[in-house]
Amino acid sequence: MRFLLKFAYDGSNYSGYQIQPGKNTIQEQLENALKKINNGEKTPLVATGRTDKGVHALCQYGHVDMNVKINEKQMKRAMNSNLPPDIHVIEAKTVADDFHARYQVKEKEYQYDINVGEYNPLEKNYKFQYNHQLNIESMQQAIQYFLGTHDFRAFVTENKERKNCIRTIKKATIKQKKETVTITFCGDGFLRYQVRNMVGLLIRVGENKIPPQSVEKILESKDRTKSGKTAPAEGLYLTKVRY
Amino acid sequence: MRFLLKFAYDGSNYSGYQIQPGKNTIQEQLENALKKINNGEKTPLVATGRTDKGVHALCQYGHVDMNVKINEKQMKRAMNSNLPPDIHVIEAKTVADDFHARYQVKEKEYQYDINVGEYNPLEKNYKFQYNHQLNIESMQQAIQYFLGTHDFRAFVTENKERKNCIRTIKKATIKQKKETVTITFCGDGFLRYQVRNMVGLLIRVGENKIPPQSVEKILESKDRTKSGKTAPAEGLYLTKVRY
Repeated sequence: MRFLLKFAYDGSNYSGYQIQPGKNTIQEQLENALKKINNGEKTPLVATGRTDKGVHALCQYGHVDMNVKINEKQMKRAMNSNLPPDIHVIEAKTVADDFHARYQVKEKEYQYDINVGEYNPLEKNYKFQYNHQLNIESMQQAIQYFLGTHDFRAFVTENKERKNCIRTIKKATIKQKKETVTITFCGDGFLRYQVRNMVGLLIRVGENKIPPQSVEKILESKDRTKSGKTAPAEGLYLTKVRY
Repeated sequence: MRFLLKFAYDGSNYSGYQIQPGKNTIQEQLENALKKINNGEKTPLVATGRTDKGVHALCQYGHVDMNVKINEKQMKRAMNSNLPPDIHVIEAKTVADDFHARYQVKEKEYQYDINVGEYNPLEKNYKFQYNHQLNIESMQQAIQYFLGTHDFRAFVTENKERKNCIRTIKKATIKQKKETVTITFCGDGFLRYQVRNMVGLLIRVGENKIPPQSVEKILESKDRTKSGKTAPAEGLYLTKVRY
């Protein structure tokens, strides 16, 4: 029986989503819980995608095949009673045997929160504590250049060369509410560090260090060294996945 | 030179505000930072009041006498460079030598946040994860009985008998925004566990287990055993202090 799990986590105390030997990861915690429920058998979970160290998820999905007979309600309850308090299964749904949590994703949404006001010790793991005002109008102009289909090579941080960096961004917004600036990107998929690198560049625009138009040139350059600093992990949330 | 410090903290990883031997407390962290700045001299900080283990403060004050010559801006910066990231000095102001951070308080405000929706792993230290709907209308009726001057003995948890439990509550509100219920109390002072015990009783009203009117009787009874469970620490914030 194949289940699709919808889950959320606080990434603060994890070395990211994906299992790594000797590190505390979200996948390991989920698979430990699954193994307990699935009669002690190793039970791999195939997630929508990875998130890096310190990144949070309000809405992440994964599919898993269970050998034990268990219904949706029992599955959710059993998972949550075996998970640590910073990981939570929101929903467990049975799906077709050929449903794939990664390959069938149509759209993903990421949100990035920046505190432009006074440093807030309660938000240190949940918003980038930038603590200075930003030129939001310039950032709003700049973000438009990310819309559409582009080769995002200039915004990817990866060890090995990746062949295909072409992705489509369907929505890109910046809003300020009190002292929090929220940047949202919605697209067919995102490359490693892509969102944090785009945010890093938008912050440079917001600091009036480069004009909004420079985003277009940097995209076209396909040169990672041009796009500047990666924004820190703690402001980033995986917020939506659409199948 | 007497300074009044305004500070905020995330109480999640502390055994409360007040220094206790062998425990990690907010006061100890603040006084360690003060000692470093004040040429290694023991430098006591007199705070507005204590907060318990796991309780947060968005706005807490304390006065301190410094022997070194230091201005307000330097004082704030020096404190923050010596404090851990979950405690932050918002403002450092010089005050008259007879200003007292505890005795001169006119009004304090506490806020209590309850998540009545799905369990949220990102809020586990910041809102009480009640995760069931509450009857807000009944709670709004019930909270009115706390307004005014009363003997709050039925809502105090303390080892030793306290003589004076008479306090005045000037404002008491309950609001729901999406899945968060926020209860706010403003008054001349609050006794130990008083806010969390009042919230505990309001939750019983919200569960339709007791009628709103019973709050009046329980107040009059002056009997702690009648007011029920103490709400957990993680939802509570000291939000305002007025001098």
